[in-house]
Amino acid sequence: MKRNIKITLEYDGTNYSGWQKQKNTTKTIQGVLEKSLSKINKGPVGLTAAGRTDAGVHALGQVANFFINVNIPTDRISRALNRLIPADISCKIAEEVEPEFHARYDAKGKKYRYRIYNQRRASVFNRNYVYHYIHPLDYQLMLEAARYFEGTHDFVSFQSAGSSMQDTVRTIELLEVINKETEIWVEIIGNGFLYNMVRIIVGTLIEIGTGKIPYNKVKEIIESGKREKAGFTAPAQGLTLLEVFY
Amino acid sequence: MKRNIKITLEYDGTNYSGWQKQKNTTKTIQGVLEKSLSKINKGPVGLTAAGRTDAGVHALGQVANFFINVNIPTDRISRALNRLIPADISCKIAEEVEPEFHARYDAKGKKYRYRIYNQRRASVFNRNYVYHYIHPLDYQLMLEAARYFEGTHDFVSFQSAGSSMQDTVRTIELLEVINKETEIWVEIIGNGFLYNMVRIIVGTLIEIGTGKIPYNKVKEIIESGKREKAGFTAPAQGLTLLEVFY
Repeated sequence: MKRNIKITLEYDGTNYSGWQKQKNTTKTIQGVLEKSLSKINKGPVGLTAAGRTDAGVHALGQVANFFINVNIPTDRISRALNRLIPADISCKIAEEVEPEFHARYDAKGKKYRYRIYNQRRASVFNRNYVYHYIHPLDYQLMLEAARYFEGTHDFVSFQSAGSSMQDTVRTIELLEVINKETEIWVEIIGNGFLYNMVRIIVGTLIEIGTGKIPYNKVKEIIESGKREKAGFTAPAQGLTLLEVFY
Repeated sequence: MKRNIKITLEYDGTNYSGWQKQKNTTKTIQGVLEKSLSKINKGPVGLTAAGRTDAGVHALGQVANFFINVNIPTDRISRALNRLIPADISCKIAEEVEPEFHARYDAKGKKYRYRIYNQRRASVFNRNYVYHYIHPLDYQLMLEAARYFEGTHDFVSFQSAGSSMQDTVRTIELLEVINKETEIWVEIIGNGFLYNMVRIIVGTLIEIGTGKIPYNKVKEIIESGKREKAGFTAPAQGLTLLEVFY
């Protein structure tokens, strides 16, 4: 009996060219996982993720699903997989779900964290997990700006140029700016995100924190529909997919 | 005028064969730093560390000193160095000290931290900085055992076999076992440490935590003078040199 298996994954994206499998020999999260799952399944496995994270982006709670044909008990899949994959990817849990479950189409929302390390000197221990931003950031301005993003808006100004997405209306349920002493964390929950949307929102918040963009201009930037009005795209390594909601 | 410069260093030891420079092409912390300092000094530089950390061991406060001949202001050395070295090594501060200062001979004590990650599943994000120990550890037993290590003792039982150190008496000022929920930290301050002494003490504490060695046997193990009575040598990657005292 074919079973539909939902897996929840943690990974350090530093040494990968992102989630999505590529035709050449590039190392990707999906590629590495499918290869190991195929060994368990004794045949090819296609893995569908809730979202395709970019190169250098990390996950604490990525979700994916695949179909398994062999008779391995569900509660052993996670350990069997962890024995086969490298130490920078880990399966937290594997669960059997209804045959109709689709990790991407059924996702109702996602939560991301972006870590900005706001100190003069870089730290060697967080270097792959934060964006090291040297210039002082005004946390209060970023906090004020955050609420203008929340709600349902057309976020076309916060989508990387060249993206072909037609419907660019998304809902941000929550955008928190958290002061962690040496770091500023941006945590964001939404029903869906355009390409690079989180990273462009963070880049905009950083330019608000330096005073380059006034905090009360966010509404105007959103309404303009122009990518160039928003801030830069913050680099990938500061971003972590925390959770996918179903 | 030749100046004696004391530098305080942070490093992620994961990708290095330890501190000490080696004749072959092996990558070492000392080798990488001397190469970059020689560029600043426009001539060869010999770097003396407070202690030679092993392969995979990290530092948050390693101290070293070297002599500089060129006229660069002391407060620019740190930034000049950080521009030349890789992101997994960082100079926190560079200070001019008396010509007699010697990072190793003048060190009065050192503080180390050892991190034990005591969960079933490994975490991808701390994998290079902790020892992942799966079996449950009784924190209370480890805490009880800790006080038997404190004080001045002959620690020959806690020295790797084959070491040629003649005087094996050392003083442990403090040995703390700290419960960090998912981790147990062992923090230790002493006037000096024999080869692998911290890692053998941690291995012994782990065997006490599993019940293999009774917590009140530590005195007996010390007095026996026999390496084989003590526990195993805990792996390098859990160890960080926190601070050197002068």
